[in-house]
Amino acid sequence: MKEFFKVTELDQVLSYVDLFRPVGVEKVSIFDTPGRILAENVMAGENIPNFTRSTMDGFAIKASSSFGASEASPAYLEIKGTISMGEIPDFSIGHGEAARIATGGMLPSGADAVVMVEHADFLDDLTIEVYKSAAPGQHVIMEGEDIQESQEILFSGQKIRPQETGLLAAVGHHKIKVFKKPLVAIISTGDEVVGIHESPGFGQIRDINTYTLYGQVLQAGGIPKPYGIVHDNYQSLYEICKKALDETDMVLISGGSSVGARDYTIEVLSNMPDSEIIVHGITISPGKPTILAKSGGKPFWGLPGHVVSAMVVFESVTRFFLEKIAGFSPKYHQRFFCKARMKRNIGSAQGRVEYIRVRLKQEDGVLWAEPILGKSGLIRTMIEADGLVAVDMNTEGLEKGEEVKVFPL
Amino acid sequence: MKEFFKVTELDQVLSYVDLFRPVGVEKVSIFDTPGRILAENVMAGENIPNFTRSTMDGFAIKASSSFGASEASPAYLEIKGTISMGEIPDFSIGHGEAARIATGGMLPSGADAVVMVEHADFLDDLTIEVYKSAAPGQHVIMEGEDIQESQEILFSGQKIRPQETGLLAAVGHHKIKVFKKPLVAIISTGDEVVGIHESPGFGQIRDINTYTLYGQVLQAGGIPKPYGIVHDNYQSLYEICKKALDETDMVLISGGSSVGARDYTIEVLSNMPDSEIIVHGITISPGKPTILAKSGGKPFWGLPGHVVSAMVVFESVTRFFLEKIAGFSPKYHQRFFCKARMKRNIGSAQGRVEYIRVRLKQEDGVLWAEPILGKSGLIRTMIEADGLVAVDMNTEGLEKGEEVKVFPL
Repeated sequence: MKEFFKVTELDQVLSYVDLFRPVGVEKVSIFDTPGRILAENVMAGENIPNFTRSTMDGFAIKASSSFGASEASPAYLEIKGTISMGEIPDFSIGHGEAARIATGGMLPSGADAVVMVEHADFLDDLTIEVYKSAAPGQHVIMEGEDIQESQEILFSGQKIRPQETGLLAAVGHHKIKVFKKPLVAIISTGDEVVGIHESPGFGQIRDINTYTLYGQVLQAGGIPKPYGIVHDNYQSLYEICKKALDETDMVLISGGSSVGARDYTIEVLSNMPDSEIIVHGITISPGKPTILAKSGGKPFWGLPGHVVSAMVVFESVTRFFLEKIAGFSPKYHQRFFCKARMKRNIGSAQGRVEYIRVRLKQEDGVLWAEPILGKSGLIRTMIEADGLVAVDMNTEGLEKGEEVKVFPL
Repeated sequence: MKEFFKVTELDQVLSYVDLFRPVGVEKVSIFDTPGRILAENVMAGENIPNFTRSTMDGFAIKASSSFGASEASPAYLEIKGTISMGEIPDFSIGHGEAARIATGGMLPSGADAVVMVEHADFLDDLTIEVYKSAAPGQHVIMEGEDIQESQEILFSGQKIRPQETGLLAAVGHHKIKVFKKPLVAIISTGDEVVGIHESPGFGQIRDINTYTLYGQVLQAGGIPKPYGIVHDNYQSLYEICKKALDETDMVLISGGSSVGARDYTIEVLSNMPDSEIIVHGITISPGKPTILAKSGGKPFWGLPGHVVSAMVVFESVTRFFLEKIAGFSPKYHQRFFCKARMKRNIGSAQGRVEYIRVRLKQEDGVLWAEPILGKSGLIRTMIEADGLVAVDMNTEGLEKGEEVKVFPL
């Protein structure tokens, strides 16, 4: 019997992301930035806003004119004029003076606050009384208060959310340098696997991994490119892998969990041009028989064949490599998770990180994580799952009521 | 002065999603399903798997043949043959018999368990000794254990994650009925607003809301369609709104926060064909001066002009309407959030739901939500934010250390 492969600890495996580099950069229109990774630092060319503006409909005043004003003893101010949006006032405001101003309007020189319409009344066409003391800066956005000229505001490696797209608009960047999306090859193997357009004969199953991985690659910011099903045969596996490696930035082979198929995969990965196997087995469950090679500078994965195992390895390991070559810097982002309490005890072997599929349930004000048990060949268990819980390698399991982190699926 | 509009409570506003219907359905290729909303219930046409298969490399046996086996007293079994993947065994297994089997291979009739290679040894070519008792079903996926024939497995209104795409593949569905993505018009207003290709003159600012809303519409499953900037003029606003309403499934106008502009927006919304204003002000902050009309059966929004207000209203209100017309059923999904502790006290007015932007920070094993203060006209505050916390309308604020729900931004 073959010697069992030597597994690598998960943290060690994750540290190998440093062996890989982003695939490149391109310029896109601002409308194509949502969800992309910025590949340049962005600086504001001017103050935003470039003038001091009102955030309310009301009266622009020198705040000190209102100090001490109250219902009982209002301040009386003289109206110097009216300022509409987009208009540059041709007068200034001194002590005891005011100007009608609309939301977004420019404060006249001298004015440093706005009194809301609700806190003032007209005595006559030219005089208002103000009932409330205003602080300097009240209901006003100062010139440069949002963004200052020459300030670096966005950084290479940041993911572009709607607000980052908005900020790019604010500074007038309409062509933006982003990282290219990595092209990711997906290859399924297995002599019993048939395409989804076929009716599986007795003893056969349809290819699932191509489709789960397709969705996962998209979610992680890559462009999936399926290469179909290869049967367990060294030559055809070699040829399709060579083609995939030439054409894409990362390759995923799933399947080949049986000893013979695993041997083929290892051999093919070893024989790719400029290839080195760096991981052969990871201390996780499910997903232990995972292979990672660096082939021509690109990550090349041998993922397990069971659908749950392949998905879990992708979520907990492969995804970080895809994000790395997609230019994403984890330092700008927290991975979102929620905390929940275990609904049941769950045992776990020491010496490996165990991933438990869980369903989230809100009951009596508590968010519970209910383990979904079931073999890693059953896709149904992933359909029922809302998230994954990692059981640390140094614990023997989780107790009912224990607080855990749940990562969304 | 105009009477202030009568605000509607947030829960009441949200209940108005029932006034709107999904925009329609279409058939797409399985590769276009990730992230889409299913518009049909899906049933399996056959058992999955359609045969009982091994999940390990090992020996298929009748479990009872191994009962009581141990290192000290192994069970001796006779090898009847070898089963490769995709092959139909032409023999059966009786008591005291075994067959070599690869992962994914079909169990011969009579066999009900698999013994791992690690728990057996060959004595000679035709005999193995087994050191461990196997339970029936061990290392085996039974016929129909994943999905049973005629079982409804996916439901209209569900969002298609990678695992749902995988399940569609498993049952051989390659053309799938999904809901159409709603087309959403985005219109910016404001006399001081200029396009992002322009250099803003003194007193002008670039259009930001078109771009933040563009990203938000995409994120929520819609197709954004920008209509540019309209200056505060009844006739041009009416014309562009009419066109947008004809061409799309939902309309967003942002801006028009000043009293005059708000009046235009209200008037235009009232005068659309078959239009009724159903909300004019919501008990939330920021975002109070939000307008919702039902125009020709479609939701038509007047969002605030301040960028943070418009984004918060979209996240906390508008998004649910977009998801509704996109066919999404919230009953199949939990909105993901995390729990964190407030890093500081924060005051809040009673009688409205207040949305606080927060930054998440892990310190001493605690996840803290640190409020980001700043006016709702400052996009910078949204760039710094990781999430939103809703302060309930019946509380006066949050105390330092209090546990809160954070919704990701």
